Amino acid sequence: MTSSPERGSVRVDLNISLDGFATTTDQTPENPMGADWQRLVDAYASTRTFRARVLGDTSGEGTTGVDDRYAAAYFEDVGAEVMGAGMFGLHDFPDDPDWRGWWGDEPPFHCPVFVLTHTPRDSIEMAGGTTFHFVSEPPAAALERAHAAAGGRDVRVGGGITVVRDFLLAGLVDRLHVAIAPILLGRGIRLWDDLRGLENDYRVTVESAPSQVTHVTFRRDH
Amino acid sequence: MTSSPERGSVRVDLNISLDGFATTTDQTPENPMGADWQRLVDAYASTRTFRARVLGDTSGEGTTGVDDRYAAAYFEDVGAEVMGAGMFGLHDFPDDPDWRGWWGDEPPFHCPVFVLTHTPRDSIEMAGGTTFHFVSEPPAAALERAHAAAGGRDVRVGGGITVVRDFLLAGLVDRLHVAIAPILLGRGIRLWDDLRGLENDYRVTVESAPSQVTHVTFRRDH
Repeated sequence: MTSSPERGSVRVDLNISLDGFATTTDQTPENPMGADWQRLVDAYASTRTFRARVLGDTSGEGTTGVDDRYAAAYFEDVGAEVMGAGMFGLHDFPDDPDWRGWWGDEPPFHCPVFVLTHTPRDSIEMAGGTTFHFVSEPPAAALERAHAAAGGRDVRVGGGITVVRDFLLAGLVDRLHVAIAPILLGRGIRLWDDLRGLENDYRVTVESAPSQVTHVTFRRDH
Repeated sequence: MTSSPERGSVRVDLNISLDGFATTTDQTPENPMGADWQRLVDAYASTRTFRARVLGDTSGEGTTGVDDRYAAAYFEDVGAEVMGAGMFGLHDFPDDPDWRGWWGDEPPFHCPVFVLTHTPRDSIEMAGGTTFHFVSEPPAAALERAHAAAGGRDVRVGGGITVVRDFLLAGLVDRLHVAIAPILLGRGIRLWDDLRGLENDYRVTVESAPSQVTHVTFRRDH
């Protein structure tokens, strides 16, 4: 046994459309997520794992099978998360010093979360093991901090898409899992732009689900 | 029995990259197809069907399974083909009145082929049942001509990508099969541009192959 744990992998999970868009553009005040977002994440949100882990639904309802297997893997062995200021909500509520994220008193992370922002604030300890830390560092330095907090478990880069792309372009991601919904959004932010040849650094596997979602995974040893 | 046959379906088959590019950009005089094209069509070109039908390889070698099943379907029940002037080669050899296409004396179509061009020329009858006709009509009118020649069998829109996109945007395609290679090309012509919501007019199914190619099919009754 050793007291210096191995570093975990850096992981990303995304839902994109068949035409490569990772964001949606049809939000309205009445439907703040937009209908496109529901269609984009439908297979994931229908899984038993999502219902239990994110919605707190303990009834055991929800799909099992391929989509649920990827949903369960999403939650496995994550010791820390990194996310952008936008995902945490700092772009929507920049002037609220007490903003604590979108996820209520007990966020579904259950680990340290490092929020990338140019205007750091004090850490916030939430129920259930989630603590939000605010760091103004480049991706690689923020990752070091997350690895140290993860204690050998994996670090997830949660989003948003521009943050994920920064990490991919910097070569910092060990495993990228993309769930491709069989829909064409036609607009938004493209995941794949400027990533020509990314597959050369990874083993790529694809698996289709009965939901007609395709799961593509880029993997490399870290 | 009736003397007026039913119309067949209008079908398209394409190979694209994970980031949606249907053309490649790395052609050189030494490698006129480019290395990217080989990678894009690798799974298809490795099938037993492709080797037999396109290369004339009767040894029985080549892959079987998912990719070969789609390759075989590509050749099934096609009564006529429509293609653009570029695919036939008129953009590369505009001044050669005797140009007869890229495919040698016995092209692999074995049916009437309607080449869309602004400068029609006389039809060319080749060995093996292929006759090239040259028509300067819009997509819908060219399709009528192809349907009449197909005698109730299907009409394939062969390419290139801009022609396929014209037919898709005009709502003229009944079945679109796309084989997605697990590579990122980063540049070229995108298949999916301006096709937001295409899935609303179709049933969409996906199937992944051991080659890590994903076969996506848009189908509707014609």
